[in-house]
Amino acid sequence: MNMNDIIYKKREGQTLTKDEIEYFVSGYTEGTIPDYQASALLMAIFLKGMSREETYDLTRAMKYSGDIVDLSEIKGVKVDKHSTGGVGDKTTLIVGPLAAACGVPIAKMSGRGLGFTGGTVDKMEAIPGFRTTVEAGDFINLVNSVGLSVIGQTAHIAPADKKLYALRDVTATVDNLSLITSSIMSKKLASGSDAIVLDVKCGNGAFMERYEDACELGSLMVDIGKADGKRTIAVVTDMSQPLGLAVGNSLEVIEAIETLKGNGPEDITELSLGLASYMIYLGEKAASPEEGYLAAKEALASGRALKKLEEFIAGQGGNPGVTSDYTLFPQSTCKSEVLAEADGFVGSIEAKSIGLASQHSGAGRETKEDTIDLSAGILLAKKVGAAVKKGELLATVFGTDQGRVDKGALEAAKAFHIQPAAPEKGILIKRIIE
Amino acid sequence: MNMNDIIYKKREGQTLTKDEIEYFVSGYTEGTIPDYQASALLMAIFLKGMSREETYDLTRAMKYSGDIVDLSEIKGVKVDKHSTGGVGDKTTLIVGPLAAACGVPIAKMSGRGLGFTGGTVDKMEAIPGFRTTVEAGDFINLVNSVGLSVIGQTAHIAPADKKLYALRDVTATVDNLSLITSSIMSKKLASGSDAIVLDVKCGNGAFMERYEDACELGSLMVDIGKADGKRTIAVVTDMSQPLGLAVGNSLEVIEAIETLKGNGPEDITELSLGLASYMIYLGEKAASPEEGYLAAKEALASGRALKKLEEFIAGQGGNPGVTSDYTLFPQSTCKSEVLAEADGFVGSIEAKSIGLASQHSGAGRETKEDTIDLSAGILLAKKVGAAVKKGELLATVFGTDQGRVDKGALEAAKAFHIQPAAPEKGILIKRIIE
Repeated sequence: MNMNDIIYKKREGQTLTKDEIEYFVSGYTEGTIPDYQASALLMAIFLKGMSREETYDLTRAMKYSGDIVDLSEIKGVKVDKHSTGGVGDKTTLIVGPLAAACGVPIAKMSGRGLGFTGGTVDKMEAIPGFRTTVEAGDFINLVNSVGLSVIGQTAHIAPADKKLYALRDVTATVDNLSLITSSIMSKKLASGSDAIVLDVKCGNGAFMERYEDACELGSLMVDIGKADGKRTIAVVTDMSQPLGLAVGNSLEVIEAIETLKGNGPEDITELSLGLASYMIYLGEKAASPEEGYLAAKEALASGRALKKLEEFIAGQGGNPGVTSDYTLFPQSTCKSEVLAEADGFVGSIEAKSIGLASQHSGAGRETKEDTIDLSAGILLAKKVGAAVKKGELLATVFGTDQGRVDKGALEAAKAFHIQPAAPEKGILIKRIIE
Repeated sequence: MNMNDIIYKKREGQTLTKDEIEYFVSGYTEGTIPDYQASALLMAIFLKGMSREETYDLTRAMKYSGDIVDLSEIKGVKVDKHSTGGVGDKTTLIVGPLAAACGVPIAKMSGRGLGFTGGTVDKMEAIPGFRTTVEAGDFINLVNSVGLSVIGQTAHIAPADKKLYALRDVTATVDNLSLITSSIMSKKLASGSDAIVLDVKCGNGAFMERYEDACELGSLMVDIGKADGKRTIAVVTDMSQPLGLAVGNSLEVIEAIETLKGNGPEDITELSLGLASYMIYLGEKAASPEEGYLAAKEALASGRALKKLEEFIAGQGGNPGVTSDYTLFPQSTCKSEVLAEADGFVGSIEAKSIGLASQHSGAGRETKEDTIDLSAGILLAKKVGAAVKKGELLATVFGTDQGRVDKGALEAAKAFHIQPAAPEKGILIKRIIE
C-alpha cells in the first residue's frame, strides 16, 4: 500500500477501503506518513467527501490508535455526554450532577479549550483544590462511590485525533462532517461508556451554522455510535446566542451552581433538564425520556443534584464550600461595561463575538501555550428579546488586565444588535435524533 | 495575510489574488510556509481549479522565485523549445542543430530525467567529455560563436518549482493543467529566451492522455507565454507509441545523429522538421512556418545541421568524433530480445510500458539518487502498423546487468499488441496553437 495512491483515489472521488484507512491512520499516528501527505488527503476528503462506511472506518481506526478505557468495574449503564462546543456552555457541570443524582454513573473525560473559552477541564480548575488528573483506579472508585467523576482526557486516548486535529486546524480542513464526526466519536468510543448523548449545536457560535448541517452531523454521529454498539442520541440545540448569562471559567461555574440551586437562566435550565432526561433514559433509570425529565426535575428541586455536585467537588480534592461562598473563586480586579447605544429590543447577540470578547478578556487561549485567567469573562445583562433603553447595561466584561478587559468590551459591543421591534422567540431544543 | 485563510479561500472555490499567490510562493520557497500547508493548497487547487489569471500569477511568482537569465548579450531572437515529455523524445538534439544551422540562436537549459528515461542533460552526458555545466559567460560566448548551447538547469532557476514539484510528486497533485503550466512556464520564462516552441504530447505515454486536455494545456501555456511578452507556439503531437526506434541515453543520441544524417525514422524526422520550422519562424529567420520548414529541410539535406551538432559537441568539450564512430559511446554488455507471439500487425505499442522497460534496464532513475546506465535502453524493431510473423523480433533491450535487462524485456513485451488487421495510421502533428 502506498500513501500517494490513497490520496489519488480519494482525489478521484473513489471510496477508500477499511485497509487503506487503517494504513493511513496508523502510519500517520506512528509518524511514517508525513504531515504533507496527510494534509493532502484531508483536503481531498474535505472536497470529495466520505461515505458513512468510510467515516465509520476512519472513526474506528482513530479509536484504536490509542488506549481503550475499561469501565467494566463500574456498575450500571455508564452514560457519556458530549457537546460540539459553544459559547457559555457549562452544561456538563449541571447535567453530570443531575444524572448522577438519579443513579446514572458518569465517568467522563473532558478536554481543555482552545479558542473562545476554556473547556470543562479549565472551568473545573477554577474551583480551589480541584484535581482534573486522577489515577485510573481512583477514577473508577470515585464513580462507584460518588456516582460522578470528570477528569482531563489523557494523550493516550485516540492520539490519531490529537495529531489530525492539530493538522486540520492549520490547513482549513476543520469543518467537514466526516472529519468532525471521526474526531468526536473516536474519543467517545475509546472512553468506555455504554451510551452517549450528543449535544449538537447550531447557529453562528457553532461549527455548524445551518440547522440542516447540524442535523446531518447528529445523524452521522448517532449512526456511528450505534454501529459501534453504543446507544447514542443526538440533541440539536440552538447556539445563535450564548448559553445563559455567564461566559468565562469562574463565572460559568458559579452560574452552574446557581442553576442547581434553581436560580439559573431559563435557557441553561431548560437545556440541562433536556439533556439529563436523555442521559437518565439511556442509563436505564427511566423508562422514557419524559420520565427521565421528571426525575431530573425532582433532583434539581429537591437539592439532591446540588449535593451531588458538592460530593463530586470534594471527591476530586476541591473545596465544596464554593457552592455557598463565591469569593473562594479567583477574583477579577477590573471590569468594563457595554451599554446600549439605542432604545429598542435585543434582536441578536452573536455568540461568536461574545466568545472572542471572552478570549480577549483572558478567559480563553489563543495558542496552546497561553495560560487562562480563571476570573475573566463576561456577564450578560440582557439576552435576545429583552427591551432596552439607550445607555442601559448590556454586559460587563471582567478580568485582571484592564487593557484586555477593554479590548473584550469593544468586541462584546459588536455582538449586540438592537432593533425597533421584539424578535420572534427562538427554539432552544430543535430536534432529537435517535 | 495568513496561509490558512488562503487555503480556505481556494477550498471554497474562490479566486486567489496576485498578492495571495505571491505570499504563498515566496513563503514556501523561503520555508516559512510548511509543506503540509502547501500540499493542502495544492490539493484544493487541483480539485477547485485556477483561472487563467491565477495560473499566470502563479507562474510569474514562481518565475521570480529565483534568478532570471539575462541573454541580452546574444544577438538575434533567442528561441527556446520545450517538450512536456515522452518516451524516446530526443528531438532537442535534432531541432537545436537544425534551427541553429538556419541562424536561430539557441541558448537552452534542460533538466535531468526522473522516471522513464534520462532527460536531455543525461542523454548528452553519454557523449564522452561533454560538459553540461558551463559558466554563464561561457554559455553566452558559445551561443554567440557556435549558435547553440544546451546546459543543465541550475537550482537558481525557479526554485519554487523545484520544491513544489517534489511535493506534488508525493501528494497526487501532478496532473493538473494550472500546476503543470506554472511548472513548465516559470522555468521557460526565467530562462531568458525571446520566443518559445512547446511540444505538448498526448497519448498514453504523456501527462495528458486525451487530445482535448493536451490542447487545453497548450492553449493555457501559449496564453501565459504571450502575457509575459514572449512569442509562444504550442504543437500538439502524438505520444501513443515511442518516438523513433531508440529509447535510452546513448541509443537516443545515436538515433539523433542518424536523423541528422538523413537516416532517421520517419516520425522523428517529421516531428523534428515540424518543430524546427516553428523555431526558425519565431526566430525571424523565415517569413512563415512553411519557409521555416524548407530551410530546416535544406539544413538537414546539406549536412549543415549535422556539422552544427559536431560544433556544439566540441564547444562543450565533447568528442565530435562520436558522429562517425558509435563505439565511442558507453557500450552495453548484454541484451534480451522480445519476439512476436502471433502473426498479424502491430496494433499499438504502449509508450508507458516501453518507458518503464527502459527504466528497468537501467536507462532511467527510480529515485533521484539512482545513477543511470548510459548504455542501457531499447531498440524497437517494429513500430505501429508493421506486419509481423510469430517469432519475429519486435525489440531488443540492452544494458550491463542481465537481470535488469531481462526485467526490461518482460515489461517491453507487454507493450506490444498484435492484431489481425493493419491499424489506421495515426497523425503525428495534431494541432498548432498560436
